[in-house]
Amino acid sequence: MSGKAPERGFPTSEYERRLARAQGAMAEAGFAALLLTTEPEVRYFSGYLTQFWQSPTRPWFLVVPASGKPIAVIPEIGAPLMRKTWLDDIRTWASPHPSDDGVTLLTDCLREVTGEGAIGTPMGQESHLRMPLRDFRRLTEALGQERFRDASPMIRKLRMVKSEAEIEKIAHICGIASSAFEAGAELFHEGQSLSDAFRAFKRKCLELGADDVPYLVGGAGQGGYDDVISPPSETPLERGDVLMLDTGAVFDGYFCDFDRNYGIGEADDAAKRAHDVLYRAVEAGFAAARPGATCRDLYNAMRGVIAEAGGADGDVGRLGHGLGMQLTEWPSLTDFDETVLEPGMVLTLEPATRTVGSRIMVHEENIVVREDGAQLLTRRTPRELPVLTAG
Amino acid sequence: MSGKAPERGFPTSEYERRLARAQGAMAEAGFAALLLTTEPEVRYFSGYLTQFWQSPTRPWFLVVPASGKPIAVIPEIGAPLMRKTWLDDIRTWASPHPSDDGVTLLTDCLREVTGEGAIGTPMGQESHLRMPLRDFRRLTEALGQERFRDASPMIRKLRMVKSEAEIEKIAHICGIASSAFEAGAELFHEGQSLSDAFRAFKRKCLELGADDVPYLVGGAGQGGYDDVISPPSETPLERGDVLMLDTGAVFDGYFCDFDRNYGIGEADDAAKRAHDVLYRAVEAGFAAARPGATCRDLYNAMRGVIAEAGGADGDVGRLGHGLGMQLTEWPSLTDFDETVLEPGMVLTLEPATRTVGSRIMVHEENIVVREDGAQLLTRRTPRELPVLTAG
Repeated sequence: MSGKAPERGFPTSEYERRLARAQGAMAEAGFAALLLTTEPEVRYFSGYLTQFWQSPTRPWFLVVPASGKPIAVIPEIGAPLMRKTWLDDIRTWASPHPSDDGVTLLTDCLREVTGEGAIGTPMGQESHLRMPLRDFRRLTEALGQERFRDASPMIRKLRMVKSEAEIEKIAHICGIASSAFEAGAELFHEGQSLSDAFRAFKRKCLELGADDVPYLVGGAGQGGYDDVISPPSETPLERGDVLMLDTGAVFDGYFCDFDRNYGIGEADDAAKRAHDVLYRAVEAGFAAARPGATCRDLYNAMRGVIAEAGGADGDVGRLGHGLGMQLTEWPSLTDFDETVLEPGMVLTLEPATRTVGSRIMVHEENIVVREDGAQLLTRRTPRELPVLTAG
Repeated sequence: MSGKAPERGFPTSEYERRLARAQGAMAEAGFAALLLTTEPEVRYFSGYLTQFWQSPTRPWFLVVPASGKPIAVIPEIGAPLMRKTWLDDIRTWASPHPSDDGVTLLTDCLREVTGEGAIGTPMGQESHLRMPLRDFRRLTEALGQERFRDASPMIRKLRMVKSEAEIEKIAHICGIASSAFEAGAELFHEGQSLSDAFRAFKRKCLELGADDVPYLVGGAGQGGYDDVISPPSETPLERGDVLMLDTGAVFDGYFCDFDRNYGIGEADDAAKRAHDVLYRAVEAGFAAARPGATCRDLYNAMRGVIAEAGGADGDVGRLGHGLGMQLTEWPSLTDFDETVLEPGMVLTLEPATRTVGSRIMVHEENIVVREDGAQLLTRRTPRELPVLTAG
């Protein structure tokens, strides 16, 4: 169902293209180097893929110079794996270090590479700095605070448009999770705790070839659910519940992010109606997702269907977002995001509506923008709300 | 094998105790408030548990005042779940916001709570700031940069000693992962790709009751492996390989972190010897882990066994670390960490040694320090390197 797995990693040409685009943008912005500290940023330019980032102990740095390959400034423990990437210049220190956890090594590297030039590092929305604040202050004081500038707009622009090789990985994990969701009738049943339902779904994704299921949230309740970010409860699923699972499964470092809804035993009219409205909202978002349209256009297209049906929105703050190396990336499908869609952008369409009282329903699909319109990466949710009845 | 699952969450008294200890330490340090931005810090004081932190889009803030309960300053999407915690004062904004992603709300809250007083926020080793740097600058400029001080030593001290309820959760997940590892003979076999071996292990942990297996790294190679942070390859396991899996599985937000080694089909003398040396190194670390001993003492105890056996260390940078809400926490078992052990500290003992050439072997067990010495949380690895033979 999910097709052959794409090859792991990327050819060097992929990284050469990324670097060339970055260095072009750096020249325009007047940056002598980029300083990157987070997992997706380091991986984007190096191909360095490890779960070791889950340990907050050690900082990791990548310096992208104005010309030439990126330079890794990393703890010794990471050197064997970094040597397998396309990088040549790998500088290491014994970390953790009691007083100088890479700061001198990084300062020297940036001094060597930038002279007196500006250093771009992400400072804007959806970014963070993954190193101790105290060490960042030491770095900026040593090199001159005024030389550090916000690289968020540049990084955002580079990463928003995906290559075919990236899209292939996202499509693959979307296919795997679609298959897992399509097995809903065998995975979920009345009387099962939500926590067991989550475990069953994760195990199915792994069985079907997902590397991991780092994100799985959801809810269940009569006719709808209360929020979309809760961990699973031990409460058993009851007849008339709407069960929703929203997953970020991963293949080779790329995410899917979509959900599915199921009626347990039966579904009431409010749930069926919400499903119908959201199905049509996604259709409208899909039709609007063409090069040249803005994120606001997609938001309005989906919002229009929900409003026309008399539904207040479900208050999740936006109706979709970018997707790729992270579960959520720029842009945001909101009424204020004027990002213009380009071929290669991967997005989620995620409309929500109230069902009964304060309860909500959320749909989500993943798409890629192509020259002639949108292409689905997930296999579409059924037209009618699927109702799971005991075998 | 893994016993009954502990109840999820904590009674309010647990949070009251944490808060009282924090406010005592704040009074000593002269802090009018703590500003917390990362998942474990926010969860420690609020009980707020969600995988939604995986989305980097939105910042989340917790303000701990000098007296009274913590105040949550969070995106609206998180309010329903935050209302289920013991907090009363929950302030929200519609996030993502194009120009003010919670900064004004947070500034006002800190102004109200602190007057002109000092604000502690983690800035030291193993910490990071999970909000855009640009927004942090706006905040510190609005309130006065000099008022922001490093709260890392205080947070570290508070969180290093675990309550019995925390230890119970860690013990439970250690038991689950121990059972999964003990099923090694049914999970792993010659000819299997490492990637499939990883999937089989994760599925077993989920089947046995783990909420998640967010961390799983490892390696395999003739007589040893190259590093301990690589993702799994597609290379099939071969006779004579030493297979190692190192897992951070989770129950109710608490981690285990340990590994197991297996010989595939057979094991050579170097591998058997390394296993013996590391087994004895853990015994020595375990015996040294008593209240009053320092982390350096544990390091030296383990290092001594490895050195006596003529083995160079395996260069992973330290021989163990703290464990709890994060896969790795303070302290570090190194020759420079003089942290004095106290009852309630949960640690990993993680000695490493070379086997052949540049290849290494790593052992790891999890312990809690008690009044009268260490207590194992994992079920000990077998005395002899387990060799998995077909059928």
